[in-house]
Amino acid sequence: MNRLYHVPLSPFCRKVRLSLAEKRIEVDLVEERYWERDLDFMRRNPAGKVPVLKIDGRTLSESAAICEYLEETHPEPSLMPKGAAERHEVRRLVAWFDDKFHHEVTSKLLYERVNKKITGQGYPDSTNVKAGAKAIKYHLDYMGWLLEQRRWLAGDAMSLADFAAAAHLSSLDYISDVDWNRSPHVKDWYAKIKSRPAFRSILADAVPGFPPPQHYADLDF
Amino acid sequence: MNRLYHVPLSPFCRKVRLSLAEKRIEVDLVEERYWERDLDFMRRNPAGKVPVLKIDGRTLSESAAICEYLEETHPEPSLMPKGAAERHEVRRLVAWFDDKFHHEVTSKLLYERVNKKITGQGYPDSTNVKAGAKAIKYHLDYMGWLLEQRRWLAGDAMSLADFAAAAHLSSLDYISDVDWNRSPHVKDWYAKIKSRPAFRSILADAVPGFPPPQHYADLDF
Repeated sequence: MNRLYHVPLSPFCRKVRLSLAEKRIEVDLVEERYWERDLDFMRRNPAGKVPVLKIDGRTLSESAAICEYLEETHPEPSLMPKGAAERHEVRRLVAWFDDKFHHEVTSKLLYERVNKKITGQGYPDSTNVKAGAKAIKYHLDYMGWLLEQRRWLAGDAMSLADFAAAAHLSSLDYISDVDWNRSPHVKDWYAKIKSRPAFRSILADAVPGFPPPQHYADLDF
Repeated sequence: MNRLYHVPLSPFCRKVRLSLAEKRIEVDLVEERYWERDLDFMRRNPAGKVPVLKIDGRTLSESAAICEYLEETHPEPSLMPKGAAERHEVRRLVAWFDDKFHHEVTSKLLYERVNKKITGQGYPDSTNVKAGAKAIKYHLDYMGWLLEQRRWLAGDAMSLADFAAAAHLSSLDYISDVDWNRSPHVKDWYAKIKSRPAFRSILADAVPGFPPPQHYADLDF
């Protein structure tokens, strides 16, 4: 059986979970306390990070590389367009969310409010939380600008770029850090992606000590 | 004419320069003072980062996405293997260097010693420099372990993984921060890659105020 080592609120794990679910690849989810740097886990991924996917007798790490692998081995339904320029746009936006958005927003809000507590690193740093709350506005505006011109973030078809963005936003929505009223385009986009069957397992996540707000799993939020 | 907006010591720009040169794609190099966030530049890449590549009438950003684009539009000579698992290993290692190595080593050494001065952010933080000098040892050992088992970092053929690693190490070698005596496998690997014609422009880089050490451009270092 395929197995994904993950933590529920990690946007990198969620992106892989969405790809797996969209492609109907069955997988056992195993929660991994990666911060304890257990030796078995470090053997699976010397980078000491989740997600790690066991599939086809292999152990894969790095979420973007895993998603490309799934795309190449399970091409249908496709999460990547065909043309080189369109594929570049998907990859640019995946990097935008996993690098820039992660650095400016996710690490400043989710990591301060949740990860620090879970991993025993103390209380949120209010300077970081403020910076994250400010930066997410700019990112929502950028998404809104893209979605004014395109049906999905990278073009006319849903792609890995949408999953990368939805993975970050859904994790932040779990702690009520997304203002869905800022951009109607972003809200419509999230409503579309949230109602996909692939999203169900993510909406069912529950982290002990951090109950999600009511609207989190509500398709009519 | 194709145009690459870059800064000379950026490992992300160097990775793209190596790909372009290996594939014999001619390009004008334009130095970009990205930290000044010039409006024209922000229009080319709203992420405000280099490299940015103008090619085929398009403006591309994000170094890994650019390299995948070049691979798809100029497949020969190939910098990616054919099999999905082998391609995953290349992408995993590109992410290893551009994410983990960058965070633990490059940002702690190169950015403290050079970027801070160039961008007017003051003096190196000695805690960071110490942490970077310690972390690079572990990374060189990991590379040595991989190269004991493989001709190149990701397998038997040279790939984007080697260019990602060589891009970081060459930038650090410019400021004498690589101990080439730590692993004979790593030294042999770097000698092989350094002697490629694609490497010439990188060995000719000169940053005002930061002259490279003598061994930097020496193929017999």
